[in-house]
Amino acid sequence: MNAIKELREIFAEIMRFNYISSLLNWDQEVNMMNYKSVKGRSKQMSLIRKLNHQRITSEKVGKLIKEAEKLTLNEIDNAMLREITREFNLETKLPEKLVVDIAETSVLAAKDWREAREKSDFSIFENILEKIVELQKEKALKLDTHPDLYSTLIDLYEPSATYEWIANIFNPIKPKLIDLVKKLNSSSDRPDDSILKKHYDEDKQFELSSKIIKKLNFDFGMGRQDKVVHPFTTSLASMDVRITTRTSEPFPDCITSTIHEYGHAIYEMGIKKELHDTILCTGASMGIHESQSRMWENIVGRSKEFWTYWYPTFQKYFPDNLKNYPLDDFHRAINIVQPSFIRVNADEVTYGLHIILRFEIEKDLMEGKIQVSELPEVWNTKFEELLGIVPPNDAMGVLQDVHFSAGLFGYFPTYFLGNLYAAQIYSKALEQMPNLPEDYKKGEFSNLLSYLKENIHQYGSIYRAKDLIRRVTGEDLNSDYFLKYIEKKYISIYRL
Amino acid sequence: MNAIKELREIFAEIMRFNYISSLLNWDQEVNMMNYKSVKGRSKQMSLIRKLNHQRITSEKVGKLIKEAEKLTLNEIDNAMLREITREFNLETKLPEKLVVDIAETSVLAAKDWREAREKSDFSIFENILEKIVELQKEKALKLDTHPDLYSTLIDLYEPSATYEWIANIFNPIKPKLIDLVKKLNSSSDRPDDSILKKHYDEDKQFELSSKIIKKLNFDFGMGRQDKVVHPFTTSLASMDVRITTRTSEPFPDCITSTIHEYGHAIYEMGIKKELHDTILCTGASMGIHESQSRMWENIVGRSKEFWTYWYPTFQKYFPDNLKNYPLDDFHRAINIVQPSFIRVNADEVTYGLHIILRFEIEKDLMEGKIQVSELPEVWNTKFEELLGIVPPNDAMGVLQDVHFSAGLFGYFPTYFLGNLYAAQIYSKALEQMPNLPEDYKKGEFSNLLSYLKENIHQYGSIYRAKDLIRRVTGEDLNSDYFLKYIEKKYISIYRL
Repeated sequence: MNAIKELREIFAEIMRFNYISSLLNWDQEVNMMNYKSVKGRSKQMSLIRKLNHQRITSEKVGKLIKEAEKLTLNEIDNAMLREITREFNLETKLPEKLVVDIAETSVLAAKDWREAREKSDFSIFENILEKIVELQKEKALKLDTHPDLYSTLIDLYEPSATYEWIANIFNPIKPKLIDLVKKLNSSSDRPDDSILKKHYDEDKQFELSSKIIKKLNFDFGMGRQDKVVHPFTTSLASMDVRITTRTSEPFPDCITSTIHEYGHAIYEMGIKKELHDTILCTGASMGIHESQSRMWENIVGRSKEFWTYWYPTFQKYFPDNLKNYPLDDFHRAINIVQPSFIRVNADEVTYGLHIILRFEIEKDLMEGKIQVSELPEVWNTKFEELLGIVPPNDAMGVLQDVHFSAGLFGYFPTYFLGNLYAAQIYSKALEQMPNLPEDYKKGEFSNLLSYLKENIHQYGSIYRAKDLIRRVTGEDLNSDYFLKYIEKKYISIYRL
Repeated sequence: MNAIKELREIFAEIMRFNYISSLLNWDQEVNMMNYKSVKGRSKQMSLIRKLNHQRITSEKVGKLIKEAEKLTLNEIDNAMLREITREFNLETKLPEKLVVDIAETSVLAAKDWREAREKSDFSIFENILEKIVELQKEKALKLDTHPDLYSTLIDLYEPSATYEWIANIFNPIKPKLIDLVKKLNSSSDRPDDSILKKHYDEDKQFELSSKIIKKLNFDFGMGRQDKVVHPFTTSLASMDVRITTRTSEPFPDCITSTIHEYGHAIYEMGIKKELHDTILCTGASMGIHESQSRMWENIVGRSKEFWTYWYPTFQKYFPDNLKNYPLDDFHRAINIVQPSFIRVNADEVTYGLHIILRFEIEKDLMEGKIQVSELPEVWNTKFEELLGIVPPNDAMGVLQDVHFSAGLFGYFPTYFLGNLYAAQIYSKALEQMPNLPEDYKKGEFSNLLSYLKENIHQYGSIYRAKDLIRRVTGEDLNSDYFLKYIEKKYISIYRL
């Protein structure tokens, strides 16, 4: 057996352990609320993590990588070797103890964070967050792939992206977003979203969300949809992709966030069979992944054409609220732009500001410019600067996201990158298929899906994000597409 | 660190892997109906199994066992060493390939069995069942702990029990059960169970079943109750015990089967902390485990006193059916004795015959006296002999139980042993606390639970079943208690 085949087999097992970790995590999120058993789970999680660390960093893997480098490889094997080498290089820099500590701490922190958020009391979370920040700094120091710690962490989720590269993209957008929000809010013809504040039965919402993703070709034979507090998507095998839905937030969050998770899931479901059980059976980067979820959620799922098709069904499900309410007003309502506290509920314009806030805070936290204990205050101050409002409590402020508890520093910026990628990719798709919006009116969504599958999904992580965006759109990431998209859309909705 | 401490640590990890396996299995049963992903799951399952096999059979474990044997050990460490030695001896006899084959096959077989049962077509299941039987025979041959293959398999679930020992217990009971069934069915005052055939809302049933186990002190902080097709209980950590409930069967199966699973769960929940994460953190044997579930399900859960307390609640939940229906008639209805096709729905008298049927068939199958292809016919013929009726199709016949698909040959007899253990233990509890039934009338169930916790649950598997029954009741397993219990109960219910 040659070296690349052997590596493929070793990493098939490593992937299996990763999938098992994902199940441990999925189960914790979906089923293990307030459990005494969280300690047992944290030990199981760290055990799998330790084992995988040992496997990835084994001498044998190192030896096989050197051998494989001498072979002439096809495109897939070449990409596989690139990713395996990356994993090997990263993991070998991390001491086993650190790896285990991080895994155990994140399970325990999930519980503390949940409690802190329920009670809106940052102090419950503070101690363990300090530990998490220390562990992440230590991890970044050991990995040392970039001169600054934060870039090293960002690179884990968006390979080869740095703080500077992202700052150069975000900084010019920031004032434009702030201006656009102001401009829209000064319109004399603002949408009225009071219709969304009425009561919508939660079971019916869930049922509708399932109906929609079914129509969007979510394959329930290789996936599930469960109810949960904080929605997410995870793969438990190459053909076991699970999304989660929340029904408790203001309508139609259940629908839009389910479409969002669908966007992640359909990416994973579309990866070609050849890549199953390999290290390439995942998205190109977190930013590219997010481009798919945000494209379906917003560009498609909040478009007038999408609702032209679906609104009659919604009117049937909620006649008391919607029967006599015009589609046009409904479409405007779900696209209202207004600063709000919760990132995942934010509209397309303010969303980026939520991310920029986190991006800047994380950078300062990693550089030691701010301390964990200062986070609530820093958060609120910055929130007012960017969004003009101050969170009334920690639950609506610094405690709203699960990410810090999971130690995912460097992850947030990929969300906004996702928006930018999405607009650029969608613009290209529209160029080739100008009739896409007409499709949606007829409940026809497979043309866009085929395009994405053909150009993005099938390849898994064969191509790096930067190469992929160039392959698909012919140019590097360019935020103009996003800016044009939101300006055009919102100027029209706000009748300016 | 001395040898026993080191073994304890090694087996803490092994237990963790077992718990992870249990999660993989729980998730498959609860969440993965008809999944394309079953193949991925089977690979994950066999990977964990392989790993644990390697760990248990490592040279280091063998060396530590020898060292530990020289130490003077306290009772717990002594029992731990006994169980570790047993595991080591068993596993070292099994080739890794066999272990992996069995694990993979059982996941795939679960899918085929489910499909076969849905379509009531044994031929869908036949091929994989043949493979399973061959694998189990091979396993028994390798283990070779008893002269006959079936005893070797029985011993895995009921340590040191043999085919002969069980046959000597079951054989004299068999004609007595057949006679009792005839006698009861010839009564001129048989219970009328038509009330159970009315419609009972499934959600309300589930709600009531949760209410009952809560009252019985099931700790929802360290456990869950989920809906499923085939109810079972599993532990995913020392403090993560999950039961499953089915609502689809004739009323009040949802209630009685939930109490049954509760009986298993409360056993696991009651094991003392000292034994957590050790090999002793489980029941003494499957028979003893089943004694707890059957005791709560039948001796308590089908008693007049239990229903004296609960019936008014049920009348409130189902007024159309029960408001004007007398408690006495309801109690007689849920205790009707009549031959039926599905084991888990069988009454306390015919239940043993269902087990004896399986016990005899499994023995012949393992000895090669019958072939897999003959199973449906053999099943039906024997069913008529023992229960006087013939299953109308395979789903109601040979396909009804999940056990064959999981390769659990030798497991069934422990169910009936459980009934026998239960009657004997309960008789002792009653001797010490004659007021127990009066407790139930008042909704007071903690005295029985305390007795069981004190005498059985806390010890986990420190004591072997045979020693435990002697400790608790002062004598060996004695089926007279069971026979007296059912005769007294049913003669009264049938007014003979």
